[in-house]
Amino acid sequence: MATVVLKRTGQKMPLVGFGLWKVTKATCAETVYSAIKAGYRLFDGAGDYGNEKEAGKGVQRAIKEGLLWNTFHKREHVHALTKLQLELWGIEYFDLFLVHFPIALQYVEPSHRYPPEWWGDDGKVYLQNTPMHETWGAMEEIVDAGFAKNIGLSNSSGSIILDVLRYARIEPAVLQVEIHPYLTQDNLIDLAKTLGIALTAYSSFGPQSYVELGVDKGVTSLLSHDVVAATAQAHKKTAAQVLLRWSTQRGIAVVPKSNSQARLVENLDCNSFDISEEEIKKLSSLNINLRLNDPRDIDPRLAIFA
Amino acid sequence: MATVVLKRTGQKMPLVGFGLWKVTKATCAETVYSAIKAGYRLFDGAGDYGNEKEAGKGVQRAIKEGLLWNTFHKREHVHALTKLQLELWGIEYFDLFLVHFPIALQYVEPSHRYPPEWWGDDGKVYLQNTPMHETWGAMEEIVDAGFAKNIGLSNSSGSIILDVLRYARIEPAVLQVEIHPYLTQDNLIDLAKTLGIALTAYSSFGPQSYVELGVDKGVTSLLSHDVVAATAQAHKKTAAQVLLRWSTQRGIAVVPKSNSQARLVENLDCNSFDISEEEIKKLSSLNINLRLNDPRDIDPRLAIFA
Repeated sequence: MATVVLKRTGQKMPLVGFGLWKVTKATCAETVYSAIKAGYRLFDGAGDYGNEKEAGKGVQRAIKEGLLWNTFHKREHVHALTKLQLELWGIEYFDLFLVHFPIALQYVEPSHRYPPEWWGDDGKVYLQNTPMHETWGAMEEIVDAGFAKNIGLSNSSGSIILDVLRYARIEPAVLQVEIHPYLTQDNLIDLAKTLGIALTAYSSFGPQSYVELGVDKGVTSLLSHDVVAATAQAHKKTAAQVLLRWSTQRGIAVVPKSNSQARLVENLDCNSFDISEEEIKKLSSLNINLRLNDPRDIDPRLAIFA
Repeated sequence: MATVVLKRTGQKMPLVGFGLWKVTKATCAETVYSAIKAGYRLFDGAGDYGNEKEAGKGVQRAIKEGLLWNTFHKREHVHALTKLQLELWGIEYFDLFLVHFPIALQYVEPSHRYPPEWWGDDGKVYLQNTPMHETWGAMEEIVDAGFAKNIGLSNSSGSIILDVLRYARIEPAVLQVEIHPYLTQDNLIDLAKTLGIALTAYSSFGPQSYVELGVDKGVTSLLSHDVVAATAQAHKKTAAQVLLRWSTQRGIAVVPKSNSQARLVENLDCNSFDISEEEIKKLSSLNINLRLNDPRDIDPRLAIFA
């Protein structure tokens, strides 16, 4: 299994994982179980996805990745949420635990609403002034306490990553961000590589991941794009496999989701072939800086990518 | 004189100022003196520009803006540098003092080298792990001590601005960033407006500001661009005035530099006409996300805009 080695712990992270976003509660246990049987050893779950308990049921043996949701950024809430997530998964520790967004929202008691999502009871977004250095300090304590082997960041840009590095006692081992041929993030990839931070790409299929949410950005699906299709045909692989390989071949991990057993197997098999440098470049040339997951669409005060 | 009102102090900042970057020591005193006589009341100086003493000589009555260079981000160094800059200018306080970059470099004794620039004696870049919250805390103490009336950020993106706001006792009043029709920064402008942070655009003339540094990005100069020229002709104004008005008409301050008395007067006069909404849009449509001032060109670890 292709892996990347994480700094500090030297642990190996699989290059291909399974994403739990939008996997329904009803199917989650079965899907995770199937995925593990198919060979998946990296699961990308989150406090916001609402299926941790089911994912955990699916298999207590799974190697898991968790994300810290925005409403739990205060020191004590990081601790409480980590324990809650471990309990839901039915495991003792996370191999990797990430800060989901560099955004702090007002705390919501899990007994009141879980997952808390972005909005208060009145449909408004409430910010909370918990600085990132407090949140990161608590993440480090999660490692100290043995609840996570590695910690990292998600949805973070250069300026905030560099600031975390200035005060980090335990440096972020992984950065998970949106990466696909419509949003190549070349500079951010270069920065992570320079800093020795492993990268995970999410939304590898681009707009496709958002179709079921009713988001239509008016662009051609990457899965049916000519350039992707031509590459797939040349290698007798699927468009999805090409899109995943475009990342993994450069050492960037991927965490595609699928509800279909066939595609789940197909995705895991994306490292069984190589595409040429030329093909990687051609795919990268589709870049239009199209960001599909931007919290500023929810509230203008959340413009973390501006 | 057109101004913007700053939060907290309610002080008015002129929409058109004078930029001291690249003004030579030999001409600086005279140029600043001319600029004040011409009506300028906002000067954009910096510890990195090496002409503070001369600018200060030019006139002790000038209303000044200063920037904190990267090598002075530690608490004690912020204090020492502010005092040094005030001394060089020969004034008692700054109306506005900005953090030049959200980057912390190793401290350089001013007696050893001033301005310290980006590199150590051996030509390498040395980072220093001073977190932004330490630097910002020191900036707040500069206000407490009466050395600055207002403080702000420069070259900062959404994620770091939002983090500063979480711990700020005194919020940033101004954000100064690169803005011109080749880099419109719409999302960042929206964010600053949402947060009530006044904006200053630098490099209003785009690539022109970098020509004398030997930087050639292979694009048409904005000063001779068809769209700019057509707008200028329609209003019987110069291309430079159109480029400045494109910002100031939207409430964004500008700080153009000029060594010519005629152009200095011409720039200050840029608010004497209005361009249409249509013309603003047409100029904005030239956007190609061309960033001219990016520290990652100096060292890949400085990718604050990635």
